[in-house]
Amino acid sequence: MLTYSFENIGSESMYEYIYKCIKMDILQKKLKPDEKLPSKRVFAKNLGVSIITIENAYAQLAAEGYIYSLPKRGYFVSNLKKQTIHPAKEKPLADQRPKNEPAYYADFVRNSVAPDTFPFSVWTRLLREVTATENELSLLSDTSVGGVLKLRQAIAEHLYQFRGMSVDPEQIIVGAGTQYLYSVIIQLLGRNHLYAVENPGYTRLTKIYESNDVKCCHIPMDDSGVMADFLKSSEADILHITPSHHFPTGIVMPVSRRYELLSWAAKQSERYIIEDDYDCEFRLFGKPIPTLLSIDVMEKVIYINTFAKSLAPTFRISYMVLPKHLVGRFYQKLGFYSCTVSSFEQFTLARFIAEGYFEKHINRMRTYYRKQRDTILMAIRESSLNPYVTILEEDSGLHFLMKVNTDVADAKLISAAKSAGIRISCVSNYYHDEQACETHMIIINYSGLEPEKVETAIERLSKCIVDVILQGK
Amino acid sequence: MLTYSFENIGSESMYEYIYKCIKMDILQKKLKPDEKLPSKRVFAKNLGVSIITIENAYAQLAAEGYIYSLPKRGYFVSNLKKQTIHPAKEKPLADQRPKNEPAYYADFVRNSVAPDTFPFSVWTRLLREVTATENELSLLSDTSVGGVLKLRQAIAEHLYQFRGMSVDPEQIIVGAGTQYLYSVIIQLLGRNHLYAVENPGYTRLTKIYESNDVKCCHIPMDDSGVMADFLKSSEADILHITPSHHFPTGIVMPVSRRYELLSWAAKQSERYIIEDDYDCEFRLFGKPIPTLLSIDVMEKVIYINTFAKSLAPTFRISYMVLPKHLVGRFYQKLGFYSCTVSSFEQFTLARFIAEGYFEKHINRMRTYYRKQRDTILMAIRESSLNPYVTILEEDSGLHFLMKVNTDVADAKLISAAKSAGIRISCVSNYYHDEQACETHMIIINYSGLEPEKVETAIERLSKCIVDVILQGK
Repeated sequence: MLTYSFENIGSESMYEYIYKCIKMDILQKKLKPDEKLPSKRVFAKNLGVSIITIENAYAQLAAEGYIYSLPKRGYFVSNLKKQTIHPAKEKPLADQRPKNEPAYYADFVRNSVAPDTFPFSVWTRLLREVTATENELSLLSDTSVGGVLKLRQAIAEHLYQFRGMSVDPEQIIVGAGTQYLYSVIIQLLGRNHLYAVENPGYTRLTKIYESNDVKCCHIPMDDSGVMADFLKSSEADILHITPSHHFPTGIVMPVSRRYELLSWAAKQSERYIIEDDYDCEFRLFGKPIPTLLSIDVMEKVIYINTFAKSLAPTFRISYMVLPKHLVGRFYQKLGFYSCTVSSFEQFTLARFIAEGYFEKHINRMRTYYRKQRDTILMAIRESSLNPYVTILEEDSGLHFLMKVNTDVADAKLISAAKSAGIRISCVSNYYHDEQACETHMIIINYSGLEPEKVETAIERLSKCIVDVILQGK
Repeated sequence: MLTYSFENIGSESMYEYIYKCIKMDILQKKLKPDEKLPSKRVFAKNLGVSIITIENAYAQLAAEGYIYSLPKRGYFVSNLKKQTIHPAKEKPLADQRPKNEPAYYADFVRNSVAPDTFPFSVWTRLLREVTATENELSLLSDTSVGGVLKLRQAIAEHLYQFRGMSVDPEQIIVGAGTQYLYSVIIQLLGRNHLYAVENPGYTRLTKIYESNDVKCCHIPMDDSGVMADFLKSSEADILHITPSHHFPTGIVMPVSRRYELLSWAAKQSERYIIEDDYDCEFRLFGKPIPTLLSIDVMEKVIYINTFAKSLAPTFRISYMVLPKHLVGRFYQKLGFYSCTVSSFEQFTLARFIAEGYFEKHINRMRTYYRKQRDTILMAIRESSLNPYVTILEEDSGLHFLMKVNTDVADAKLISAAKSAGIRISCVSNYYHDEQACETHMIIINYSGLEPEKVETAIERLSKCIVDVILQGK
């Protein structure tokens, strides 16, 4: 009969202790495969514990596969047939995460927002209201793939008021970030198409398509955006563009080019245009340009936008507007998915928009960014850099271009800035092909820079760039 | 010279009105392509407005492509070359969204939680604390793809305390739901592998793989889980299983089978096992079984778990634990992505776990579910259905099986329940192949049923099932 001493039981429960003792005996082969264990009643009496305790220990062992039971015969030790496992080869864990970038004094590359601009208190108040007043069942269970209806209604109303777009809430699909929505579009339209992207353009976009095993081609641009002739001579079916404000060149696509692209799309049933309107809210002058979607009568445009830019990057809430005829296909093919954004944040954002806070926030931010841009432009104008640079595309979005009149390589400009603690990038960094034209255009993304740092940042940048230019002569 | 009357200007700004008038004239061909527009100064004087106003109107028109400027010559009307666009064929918008299911009195299929069980007030308090005390910069800008470090540390600590798993926070990747993480795994391991899933199993899982253009095969199960022989004779490289609590059968995979599968994985460098531990927290009896990951010394297991089950389905926060040697590959291949969960929720969840609320919640819910299960079991025992059914696998997870002693087709059982307002499904619904064995096993998923409905729900279910059985005789 098995007997265990309870001397070393410590803080464990009785059943847990017995379970461990038996397990150890099985693993150490003191108990042999198919050996019968004592009956619960006898064992309990022997150890002076309750039958329930033994029952629990046996049940746990049985659930984990160490013992098995035969009806009316009792419990037996399993044959573990433990396979020999060779230990994993030692692999160095070093170098696995990218090393931290050096701490820059100012970063003109990274997309971020000034930390004290987000209306925390309004947001948390609305969140409290949501938890207090929304139907808890829908807060806790509504995971419909398109998103919470209230949010989609608020977005539709916003698009109507702010962008003149007339869309049905049913056409709107909410998702955790545009990167996620791209993968949804790929699943919807199919991986067998060739996707065309802008060159230059967001290099991440190419990475996302490639990571999803989608072939993509790069269409060169002229002053109006992607060139339709190149597009037509490509095999592409899907065109992914940022017509409101191209990154990095800042180009706003004129209406004529928009019609030309829509005409291209209309020629084949499987052709679509993904209109990425990522920072349309921050056009600093005049009204935003009408979207492709609003002049599209052929249902060829998938419109996509994000709150990551307009609220804060960590709000992973984006949405897309599907053409009506794709809504059915979406629910048929992908309706089994759950929405990737928590209902709490969806309901809160719905209120934030519907109660006018979003518009207020956008207006405040537009003023903030306009001031930020003007301060930076002024600082450049007053710096030693001024005679060597031309400023371009400063009106829309959250970056502008600074063309440096020099023959010095872009890489040299960037590394000079780096050694002065300033992070910059150049338009040439965003070309797909290596033989990119070195145009010496520095991108000044000013959205995240703290206002009090502007003066010193531009001073440092000016000094090092001017030094490099003069050395290059 | 262009002249416009300001009679109808309404609430528009002056520049907006002039912009619209000129645009209309261009669209109506009153202004011809390449026609020169009056100089700003002359035009302003003529209309009696400021030069700035005209400047703004021209700039807006130029930005939208209606006019263009030539250096030192002025502004000219663009040639819009407006393409003829044929209106989209009328397509009926009906039938696009799935029709709403009839409103059931009780739903034993859907995964949800009882609405009043979630600790709202604690959650919102922690969220407030987060917004008040966390570094705002990291709240608004930290979008690193692995997730917020504090959350990953809290998860690692939780896994150690609760599951005896020793993992490094660096191995943890946070994402918006397990469905999303599956697609990340596919991108990480590659689309060209054959993925093996359990049969029966979650039908959604097959859909997700297929929607991502990944081939998958279905491995039959015995009482210990997927059968290793079938797996070995397949071409599969990746095995996706739910060893802690299989859905729908409820099987807990014994240790011997676990070792057998690990041994299979160890034989080829590209083989991996995805261990889906989706409801391990809700084992209602005893300690949870050790995970595959914790007995894996070959770095072959990707562990995946979610807070959708343990908090509420609308919390789209899941995570996976990568083997150490895959961490580097992950950051190299997919490091350009942003995390899909907002920092606000990540920081809040980190506190929720670190301050012990998660454990408390789990314990409370376990008690709640145990009571819920017992009430339902009692109701079945006391019902007219009792002589016809056997209850199986009631100890782990949030569902159990009810085997009906009948020859009546499963579809008939389901439709009988439906007409009584009760939604049920059967194990046979979760087989991949059509010739699934009709075992008359009803799945009772009790997680979302309101306690006060239990009695009536079981009464209705009993009555209709017994009727069908008796009719079938």
